[in-house]
Order: sequence, then structure tokens, then C-alpha cells
Amino acid sequence: MATVSFKTESPYVKREEREHDPSDLKYQKFLDTVSGSVSSRRPVTMALFGVGRAGGIHLGNLKAHSSINLRYVVESDQNKWDQIQSVCGSSTEIVHPDQAAEMLSDPELNACVICTPTFTHKDIILLCLEAGKAVFSEKPIGETPEDTKTCYMTAERVGKPLFCGFQRRYDPTFADIQTRVRRGEAGHIQIIKSISRDSPLPSLDYLKISGGIFHDCMVHDIDMQCWVLGELPVQVHTIANAQIPEIAEIGDYDNVVTTLTYPSGTLGIINVNRFAAYGYDQRLEVFGMKAMYEANNGKPNTAVYSTSSGSSSVPIYHSFPSRYEESYAAEMDHFVDVVNGTRELPITYLHSSAVSKIADAAEKSAREGVSVGLVWDKAEIPAGYFC
Amino acid sequence: MATVSFKTESPYVKREEREHDPSDLKYQKFLDTVSGSVSSRRPVTMALFGVGRAGGIHLGNLKAHSSINLRYVVESDQNKWDQIQSVCGSSTEIVHPDQAAEMLSDPELNACVICTPTFTHKDIILLCLEAGKAVFSEKPIGETPEDTKTCYMTAERVGKPLFCGFQRRYDPTFADIQTRVRRGEAGHIQIIKSISRDSPLPSLDYLKISGGIFHDCMVHDIDMQCWVLGELPVQVHTIANAQIPEIAEIGDYDNVVTTLTYPSGTLGIINVNRFAAYGYDQRLEVFGMKAMYEANNGKPNTAVYSTSSGSSSVPIYHSFPSRYEESYAAEMDHFVDVVNGTRELPITYLHSSAVSKIADAAEKSAREGVSVGLVWDKAEIPAGYFC
Amino acid sequence: MATVSFKTESPYVKREEREHDPSDLKYQKFLDTVSGSVSSRRPVTMALFGVGRAGGIHLGNLKAHSSINLRYVVESDQNKWDQIQSVCGSSTEIVHPDQAAEMLSDPELNACVICTPTFTHKDIILLCLEAGKAVFSEKPIGETPEDTKTCYMTAERVGKPLFCGFQRRYDPTFADIQTRVRRGEAGHIQIIKSISRDSPLPSLDYLKISGGIFHDCMVHDIDMQCWVLGELPVQVHTIANAQIPEIAEIGDYDNVVTTLTYPSGTLGIINVNRFAAYGYDQRLEVFGMKAMYEANNGKPNTAVYSTSSGSSSVPIYHSFPSRYEESYAAEMDHFVDVVNGTRELPITYLHSSAVSKIADAAEKSAREGVSVGLVWDKAEIPAGYFC
Amino acid sequence: MATVSFKTESPYVKREEREHDPSDLKYQKFLDTVSGSVSSRRPVTMALFGVGRAGGIHLGNLKAHSSINLRYVVESDQNKWDQIQSVCGSSTEIVHPDQAAEMLSDPELNACVICTPTFTHKDIILLCLEAGKAVFSEKPIGETPEDTKTCYMTAERVGKPLFCGFQRRYDPTFADIQTRVRRGEAGHIQIIKSISRDSPLPSLDYLKISGGIFHDCMVHDIDMQCWVLGELPVQVHTIANAQIPEIAEIGDYDNVVTTLTYPSGTLGIINVNRFAAYGYDQRLEVFGMKAMYEANNGKPNTAVYSTSSGSSSVPIYHSFPSRYEESYAAEMDHFVDVVNGTRELPITYLHSSAVSKIADAAEKSAREGVSVGLVWDKAEIPAGYFC
Repeated sequence: MATVSFKTESPYVKREEREHDPSDLKYQKFLDTVSGSVSSRRPVTMALFGVGRAGGIHLGNLKAHSSINLRYVVESDQNKWDQIQSVCGSSTEIVHPDQAAEMLSDPELNACVICTPTFTHKDIILLCLEAGKAVFSEKPIGETPEDTKTCYMTAERVGKPLFCGFQRRYDPTFADIQTRVRRGEAGHIQIIKSISRDSPLPSLDYLKISGGIFHDCMVHDIDMQCWVLGELPVQVHTIANAQIPEIAEIGDYDNVVTTLTYPSGTLGIINVNRFAAYGYDQRLEVFGMKAMYEANNGKPNTAVYSTSSGSSSVPIYHSFPSRYEESYAAEMDHFVDVVNGTRELPITYLHSSAVSKIADAAEKSAREGVSVGLVWDKAEIPAGYFC
Repeated sequence: MATVSFKTESPYVKREEREHDPSDLKYQKFLDTVSGSVSSRRPVTMALFGVGRAGGIHLGNLKAHSSINLRYVVESDQNKWDQIQSVCGSSTEIVHPDQAAEMLSDPELNACVICTPTFTHKDIILLCLEAGKAVFSEKPIGETPEDTKTCYMTAERVGKPLFCGFQRRYDPTFADIQTRVRRGEAGHIQIIKSISRDSPLPSLDYLKISGGIFHDCMVHDIDMQCWVLGELPVQVHTIANAQIPEIAEIGDYDNVVTTLTYPSGTLGIINVNRFAAYGYDQRLEVFGMKAMYEANNGKPNTAVYSTSSGSSSVPIYHSFPSRYEESYAAEMDHFVDVVNGTRELPITYLHSSAVSKIADAAEKSAREGVSVGLVWDKAEIPAGYFC
Repeated sequence: MATVSFKTESPYVKREEREHDPSDLKYQKFLDTVSGSVSSRRPVTMALFGVGRAGGIHLGNLKAHSSINLRYVVESDQNKWDQIQSVCGSSTEIVHPDQAAEMLSDPELNACVICTPTFTHKDIILLCLEAGKAVFSEKPIGETPEDTKTCYMTAERVGKPLFCGFQRRYDPTFADIQTRVRRGEAGHIQIIKSISRDSPLPSLDYLKISGGIFHDCMVHDIDMQCWVLGELPVQVHTIANAQIPEIAEIGDYDNVVTTLTYPSGTLGIINVNRFAAYGYDQRLEVFGMKAMYEANNGKPNTAVYSTSSGSSSVPIYHSFPSRYEESYAAEMDHFVDVVNGTRELPITYLHSSAVSKIADAAEKSAREGVSVGLVWDKAEIPAGYFC
Repeated sequence: MATVSFKTESPYVKREEREHDPSDLKYQKFLDTVSGSVSSRRPVTMALFGVGRAGGIHLGNLKAHSSINLRYVVESDQNKWDQIQSVCGSSTEIVHPDQAAEMLSDPELNACVICTPTFTHKDIILLCLEAGKAVFSEKPIGETPEDTKTCYMTAERVGKPLFCGFQRRYDPTFADIQTRVRRGEAGHIQIIKSISRDSPLPSLDYLKISGGIFHDCMVHDIDMQCWVLGELPVQVHTIANAQIPEIAEIGDYDNVVTTLTYPSGTLGIINVNRFAAYGYDQRLEVFGMKAMYEANNGKPNTAVYSTSSGSSSVPIYHSFPSRYEESYAAEMDHFVDVVNGTRELPITYLHSSAVSKIADAAEKSAREGVSVGLVWDKAEIPAGYFC
């Protein structure tokens, strides 16, 4: 019979003390909820600007978060108000953009989350910062490098954080790989490769104002690679075309491969596509001297169906709202801590402008058919990165 | 060059109309949020009784749900109040059980969610039902078959739903398999097999009052099998022992295999364990004449780490709060619809008592070392099931 | 730049000495072939009796094995001779069973491989043993326990090995799991579970003479479980039926679940089916206090095909010749070593008779609807097993 | 009860006629062996030149193949003779290269398999061809484009096939993907990506005479991509370095990424590394408008081991002999058919020289840091390819 028991040194004896594996972040969240001790977090009162696609995602997370009071939602389309109210409940007030200035005078309002169309970002960010509010803005901060710089400079002047949404860093798998790579567990990295294929195909109207595939899509991959490696590339080369005639007509690309040369000798590959029929495909592979790490696509369910024709499973997630559901929530969690001053701002002006500079170079390489070198001034390199 | 375009019959042309795969339930939820049309759901005002383990899970879901106003939380331990308040926000009032009767006189309160210890279920359920509130109760409804019956009879008399929490039916994978089996896609089922291995090991204090592994754990597997098949078994046989001495001392089992004979010829296998070192293991396999379906364990992240020692990935979810996170939310969603009268009660008195009767037989088989036959009166068989 | 090099302690420096992972058995076989040193193995001259299904598998392995000279093939059906000759090449002689006695007088012939129909096994085995040849026979050795005993007693008397084909023990995955379990790496085993589902459905003609599903199929699972655990069960219980009317008509079963109680407290589950539409399904799961090990089904290729309908892959192997290709070759390899006296006989009379006794009990349980106890005399327990 | 039977239209009724899934190639091979009909294949008598690494692999396959008589092995190192003889058996004669000319006068000898060091290829190929033998040669055919051309021209003149070993095309997974892509099932291909990472690290002695990573390794990837797509690239760009100092010292690379632009708009990525710590990594991904196909790495066994630290499995195959075991056998099978005139030569002079020209361009791009364009004369394009 078994010789293990509650009294002996069996695997389950010290279970009270035994840490569950830290990768089960949802279980940690559960433990935090039922811990019985009062959270040390100060609740933050927030306003949300714009309930479109990104705003819709944040709306749910703002309502669900235990340390956020969503006091205001600013939305110009009054047809949406009833729907928004039904989601938020009665403790949230919906206001028209015309009333935004007045709303910002509420001294209890701590922070603003900005999900309006890109061309409005700069003005709203400045308005909120000048009112002394912390700001979370969906990327890009501004339509031009100058606008972006103005926003960050203002944030610095008024002493409030400007948090740029790059939700991929909060994906549990990507984050785990970054941690291991930075610890050196994989040895020196020889190859880093990321794939981003969009699903569904965005509308032509959106594509026309998207800023192009390099600044709309590839910036995420560029940020990912630099963040995982802690390096900035010194040269990029792109091959690209448009498989879809309408995308060719607007002068954009939908099929892009960029290679990147990093100063330590790491070689990078980024593959970005505007449309994948099989779902929203987001992968990362890091190959070092000691190990290879892969981030694969998750699926909505775990069933395997086997017949005489073979085995099958459901498609990967259809699009970013389901694929990055956990990431968006974790990102907002981080923002709360930034507002409270207990965690650092993850993306600074230097990160934003470095990523933008690399995307410019990748696009230039595609348009001109040449490799493009990148020279980095010391002052351009974000803390913790090297080049 | 490409011959597909927005104008032609390409796979992505009609993307606006194209349905994403229905298995991506999170994406559907997102679409519902941003649809712009007012939800047809009436908001429901609720009270939560008890913030222990199950209550902690429901607390988060009640707060996050767009159609629920969590007006009250009833909790006897005042040390938890600050913590609870910080989770709920100011629109929720925390009350002591002494004030429950008064609280129930609030005419705007529609429904109560009961997560207190088992021995209190019956009294609180009856109190709430008599006050005209819809009731959601964690299983088991009562400590004895008589108590359970009393509760259901009362619900019927007052015309309010009594919703019993069996969250596993809301697991997206299990639900998908059930749908396909009931549609006949797998042909006649020859074998149905389920595995439930707990993690972490519950405390001895809990085990002493748990009601035993058959009624505490195996009831979920019994309900799952009957629900997938739409049948009730006519015979069961159990082999079982306790691998952990302390569990043997309290007369319970921790290592159990029950086989079930269904009238259509399907053979069932249930394997239940109190402790799995590698995480919370919950699987289902259905083997029919045409196909075999498997529900596998999900993982907190999708990374694969490869070294010269092989490939590895993180452990499966540690315990039920993370494993069934989606299921608990979907279950509460169903309850809202039941309160609003737009969906049926999934688990009726007949389901509850059938499962309980089968668990009794499985336990009897273990204790007496014999196969136990089950005879079903027509009046005992839930709608949609046969025997 | 990289700081690793051939000269330093990098992961690849000592690669000459570095052992590849021992699980890559094919690579080890390759190294043996190109090692440049003469194999220490003495070549063995063999005769093959019968080229049916099993014989066809062995024929290819006998021809390919570097230490086997296949000198004779005995086959009564002369229509097959040309085909056999074309497979074997000119160095093999095909003989009629009438000439078998004469053939056995060849003093250079070391060993015989018997793949004829079951009812002929005993006579041919005795003939070969009496001629002083080592014998490999497909299972079962004899049609009755008495015949089997006679064969083994004769082998002992003449001092020649009688090797019974149980190819599953040579499956690399099953073998690896057995090794780890016996080393204690999984802790005490709580549950052992095996699944064997046949594909394609055998013909009715075969089923009529197969000896029934317990002795034709389940014996493999029984041997596997006892071999992995090193234990013999003390009680078995079976539920079973025939889903296919013609199988019911011949009094056999095609849908069987047997539970087994082992003396250490391990609980066993065996599920055997005569037909799986999705391929030849052979799995094993071992769940111990510290770990859970699973042997999954391999596939003919590794491709994953993803479309908007989901991901798919090819079916598992169709039947035993492809599923156990490696095992059959490894088994014959072991036989060569047994003939040469360098390795032990893996399956003795005690193993054979124990497995047969357990299969009898499992069948009796099915037919009589009762649990069947098993009492083991010390003299019945194979070396290395306990009870 | 079941309503299916042998008599009705059940999934298993017509099983005699039912084709197993064609992906189970091993099962098909088994059926061929036991079919009872004489193979229509004429047996081929062969000689093997050189028993090094590749020769060791072919030696086993030549011995095992049912339509090959391995009559001669030519090996200069007499220390290996006993070992070789013990593998081949007595029906094979081992000869010294000095006797090769005499051996080639054997009129029954149909074909020669050449696995000697690269610098000897041309002379032996010409010797064999001039003697009227069909020739299989490991790649590369010659050390220079001129040598290669001479060999192919000679083969054409004497009317004997010159078969170049590119075993990857015979990998069941790659072959299946190629078939589907060519049928158009994936739609127009946007991205094709292949990864080849060697294991173990070859010796420096080998690396010095290997011809460099582009001609030693990348040629396989180049052939694979062109063969899958049926296209030749019009431009290539390479980034590359040496992570291992000794490889830098000999002027070679060990870390290479090449991008390829195909005329239809497909973008290609090839990543080649000289050393992967986790095993021999060979993957392919094809992404089309309708589907994405992936060829993943297989593993020596299928076990999954789960503990509180996570799940693990054994490493992928260690090196090419185990990884491509099936491919080498299938390749030799194809060669037999080419000798017999029943199948086409898969790789012609045009394939060889196109691959070589692309490898030159990829290397030039690495050395000069520029993109290199490729212009194709009509006469350079292999049949079935376009550009």
C-alpha cells in the first residue's frame, strides 16, 4: 500500500505552502481575489474616450477590473449610448465630446483611456495631460513623429504618465519567452522570427487611413523583437508586394518579409500579411545556442475530432479581440499600477520613436529595393537596450 | 500575379458577411459588445451570499457582467468586507447575514447567488425563494435528498427558478462534444470515458465535510456522461481505495474507477482521483462507430521550449478556478437568461436526483464489492433523456 | 559577437563525445552500422514457416537484418512462391511443408520463426525444438493451456529457447514508460489504463477462429499492464457487449471494459474494441503519485493543414503492420540475441500462463456478470513480478 | 442496440474494399509484401561505392529492398570489410577500388550507387556510365558546374540515368504538401519558408571541405522551395554571419537567412544553421490564399511525461540518418523504378544547375551585401517549372 501521507514528505504534504506553477496567471488572479486581505492598490477613477473596436475591448476590462471606477465614457455617436450604458451600469456617466473639458475638471478623475480615431489622438492626449490626468492611448500616439514627440514632452512636463498600448507584450507566452531569453537561458540568440497575419481582412476604408502595413502592423513585431532581445537593429532589408489588387492600387503592401541584422549577430525575420484565411496568426520563434523557444497560436477549445479522414480541431482565434483577450486585461492592469506609481511605464518615447524609425527603414527598403542601415545615437537608445 | 481581389469571389471578399468559426466564443462576445445595438437583455439585480472559493469566482463574474447589477454581498466575516468592497466598487453594499431578511425585501432585487457552506444551502435557498427571488446555488442543493427535494418543490410552488451550478457543462470543449454527439455525428457511442483528478489536494478539514468523493467529485462526471449521451445507466461497478492513509482513516476513497452500463449498449468509465501532482486534470473521450472525440486539458500558455533534453511546456491549469474560468462566466450568463425567462433551466430536480442516485450506487458498489443495478421509474427520467 | 567556440566549453564543443538522446533508437542503429568495427554478434541462420499477415511482416525484417541469414521459407501455397522468392532474393530456398523435416536436418540452421495458423503451432514448435532449433512463435503458443505447457516443457528439456511474439513490449514509447515506472520515477502508480481498438475490422471468418476478443486481443493489454507494473491482479471485473450483430451471433464481444485490482492498490482499466473507424488505436496511460505518462498514437506524417474550417492532420496508422513496424523489427533483434545466448528470454511460460489465466477471468466476468478473484501460487509468479 | 452490421451500409461493411488513408505508406508497403501476386518489378543488381555516412544508410536499404540484389560493395578501407560483410551477408562481394573496372564488366550488374567523397564523384560516375550502368550519386554530382555538366552530358550520350540523391523530396510530409500545393488546394502561395538546422555540429575537417553552407546545406532548401512551387526565383538577398569563431576563420557562415522573390509574387524565406542544440530541425511552411500547411519535426517516440514542472517529450531526431530514414528508403525505391524505366528521373541536369545557380547568388549576396538578381534563359528552366 501507499507509504505517502499527509504527515510525511510526500509531494502533496506541503501543498499549503507549495507554489503552483507561476505560469497559471489566472489562478494567481483568483488567489488575489479570495485572499481575504485588502488589496494594497488604490482604486483609480477613469474616463474612456471612444467605443469603437479597441474601445469595446477596453470597456469590458475597465468595468471588470476591481481597482478601476469607470466614471465616464466619452462617445460622440449618441446611437451607441444606450448600448454603452447597458454594458457599464448606472455608476458610469456617458458624455458627449463637447462636455469633455468640463468632465476633465472632476478632481476625482485620475486617468483617461483614449481609443478614438488616430487623427484625434494628439489633441485629446494633450487636453487630458494638461488637465493633470494620466493617459493611456492606443497606438499610435500621434500621426507624425512630431506629434508623438509633443505628446511625450507634454507628459514629461506635467509629470503624468503617457502609456502607449502595445498589448502583445502582455501575452503570457511572449512574456514568458522574453523573460527566459533575457535571463540567458537560451544562450546567445542566433535567429528571432515573428509572424503576424491579420484576420479578417480589414475594410478598404480602414486600409486607406491605416498608415500602411509597416506602421499599422509591423511596428508590433519590431517592438516584440527589440524587447525580447534588448537590442536595436543596424540594418534592415524588405521584400514585399500586394497580392490583393485593391491594396496595390492604394500603394500599400499585404505580403511582406523583412530581415533585420542586430549588432550582437542575431538575425531577425519578420513576416507580415494582411489576410490569413485560417485565422489570426501570431507566432514567435527564438533560436539560441542552447535552446529554441516557440510561441504557438492558441485555440478557442481543446477538442480533437478523429474520423477515417484524419484528426481535426477548431480554427485558431479569429481576430485580435479574442486572441489577445488576456493581454488587453493585463495591459490595463499595468496601467493602473503606473497611475498609482507602483510600476514603471513599459513603453517610453524612446521605444516609440525607435520602433517608428525601424518601420520607416523597413518600408524604405521595400519601396527602393535596397538594404537600409540604421545608425543609433546614444540618446535614442531606450534604457535596458543596447546597440 | 494574384487573381483574387475585393471584387471577385475570393475567400475574403464577402468577409463582412462571412461568419467566423462559431467555436471562437470570445470573438462572438466581443462582437456583442461593439454591435452598437442595445442588448435585448433586461439587467438583473443580484445579491451574492458568501465569498469563499466559489463565491470569489462568482464575485468577479458578477461585477464584470454587463447585464448584472451586483447590489448586495452577504458575508458573515467582517474581516473580508474591505477586500470585498474594493473588488465590487461603491455601487455594491455589503451586509451581514443578520440583515439578509431585510435585504430580501428590496423589490428591485431579482436574484440570489448562494456560495455559502453546504450545510446552510437549504435554509438560505428557501429564504430567498419565499422572498420571490430567483436562486442560483452551488451544488449540492441540499445535504440530503429530502432537503434537495424540498428546495425544488418550493421553487416550483413559488414559480421561481432554482439553478444548480454544474459549471462543467459550460466548458466550450465539453459543450461542443455534447452537441456533436447528440446530433449523431459520431454514430452510436460505444465508449464514454471521463477523468477527473483534483489539484491541489484539498485540506483534511474540507475532506471530512465534503460528503465523500462520490458526491463531492464523481457527480460532475456522472452528470457529464448522462448529459452527453442523453441516457441513464442501468448498472454500475466500482473499484476504489485510499492511497493516502488519512483519507483511509476518515473512511473515504481517493482512487476510484467506476464502470457504467447504459441501456443502448454504451459502456462508461469514470476515473476520479483526489490528487494529481501535475495539475487539475479533466478529460473526456467519446468513441462512436464513426468517430472519436477527445477533450484535452488546456494550458496557461502556448510556449514550447526545446533543448537537448527534449521539448517541454508549462503544466496544465493548477485548479478549478483557472481551468473553468470561462465556464463559470458562461454559467452565470445562462442564469441571467433564466431569470429573464429567455432560456430554460438546464438542471432540474430530475437531473439532480438522478445524478445523486447514480453516485449512491457507485459508492455502494465500492463499499460492498458488488455491481449495483439501477431501475428507473418513468417519472424519474429528465426530459430529453431516455433509459 | 559570440563567445562560444570549438575551443571553449560550449554546448557543441564536446560533441564528439556527447551522447545523443538515447530515445533516438534509429540513430543508434545507424551508428552501429557505420561503426567500422565488426559486430560482435554471431550471424544466425533461420527458417520462416508461413507467409500470411504476420509472416509477411517478419519476412521483410528477416531479409533486412544484418545478423540473419534467411535460408528457408516454408510455405504450403505454391502460388505465393514466386512472390516470396522475389522478396527474399536467390540466397533463400522456398520449401514445401512436406520437406520441413529434411530441412530441419540442416546443421547450419539455428532457428525457426513460426507464423502459420494457430492450430498448427504446437506440432511445428515441437518438431523444430526436437530438431534442436531455437523457436520464435507468434502468439498463442498453443490452442490450449496444455499444448502451451507441452511446448514450454519441451523447450526446457531440449535446452532451446521458445520465444513468444508479444511485439508491443518493443514499442519504443511503451518500453520507455515501462523503464521509468519500474525505476520509480512516477511514484506509486494509482491508475494504469490501456486502450486497444482494432482497425480494420477483421473478417467474420477470422473472428470465428480467433479464440475470442479476450484471448485474441486483451492478452496484449494484460501483458502490458503486468509488465509495466511488475504485478499480477487479484481481481477483475468486465462489462462487455457486441455492437455488431454478427459478432453477437458467434457469441463473441466487440466492446469491452475490464477493471483490474492490483495488490499494491493500483487500479487498472483495459478497454478493447474490435473496430475503430479512425484507425488502429493503441494507447497507454500511467498515473502515479509524482507523474502521469501517456503513450499516444503516432501518425504516418507530421503535416498540419489549416484552413478556415480548422486544422487537420492525417489519420493514425491504419493497422498493426504499420503501427508496430519498429516493434516487430526490434523483437526479431531480441530473438537473435536470445539465440546467441546474449540476452534473456523476455516471455517465459509463467508470463504466458499468467496472462492466459487473467484473460480467462476477464471473460468469465463478462459472461457471468460477476467480479472474479485471482489467487496466485508462488510458483505461478514470473521472476521480477510480485503479487 | 446497434443497428449497424456486416450486412448494412455501416462504416465498416465494405471494409474489404475500403481504401485505408493513402498517407499510411508503411501499410501500403506491407500490403505489397503480402499481396500474393508476383511483383511486376524486375530485380536490379547493384554495386555500392563507399561505406561512409551516406553509404552506411544506403547499405541497409540496399540489403533490405526486395527488388535489389546488392552484388558488390566497393570500399578502399579494408578494415571495414568484415563489418560490411557481416551486414550484407554472403551473397555480396566486397571489392577494392582497384578491381572496380573489372567488376563493371559484369554484364548482370545494372546499377551503381556512389557514396564516396565528393572529389571522386566525377571520375566514378563517368567510369560507371561508360560501362553502361545506371548511376545513383549522392549530391553534389561534381565539384564544379563543369564537372556536373560533363557527367549529365555523358549520361545522356550513353542513354543511362544519372540519379542525384535529394532525399528530402521523399519525406512523406514534404511530398504530401508539395502534391497539395501543386493541385492548387492552398490557393496562390504568398509565403514559403523552410528551416534547416544541422545536428550534430559537423567536424571542422568536414566543414573545411564541405563547399560552404550554401552549397552543402542550403541547396536542399532551394530545391525544396522550387519543387513545391514549380518556380525559380528572380532575386535573392542574404544576411549571414558565423557565430562560431572557427567557422568564421575558414570564411564560412553558420547562421544564414536568405529571402527569395518568385515571379508569381510568392516570397520565400530560407533559414539555415550549422548547429541546433535541440536536434536536427527541418521544417517547411507554405502559406496560401486558402490555407497554411506546416511540416513539423517528428520524434522518436510519442510519450508525454507530465509532472508538477510541466509536460515534456523526447528531443526531435538527432540527425539526418534517423530523421530521413524513410526518405532514403523511398529514394532508393524510386531509383529501382528509374533503372527499370517505369518512372521518370526526378532531378535532371536543369534542376541541379538551377539550384546551384541560386545557391551561388545567395552566397554572393551574403559576401557582397547586395541583393542579387537572377535571369533565366528558357533553356535553363526544368520541365514543369516556370519563371
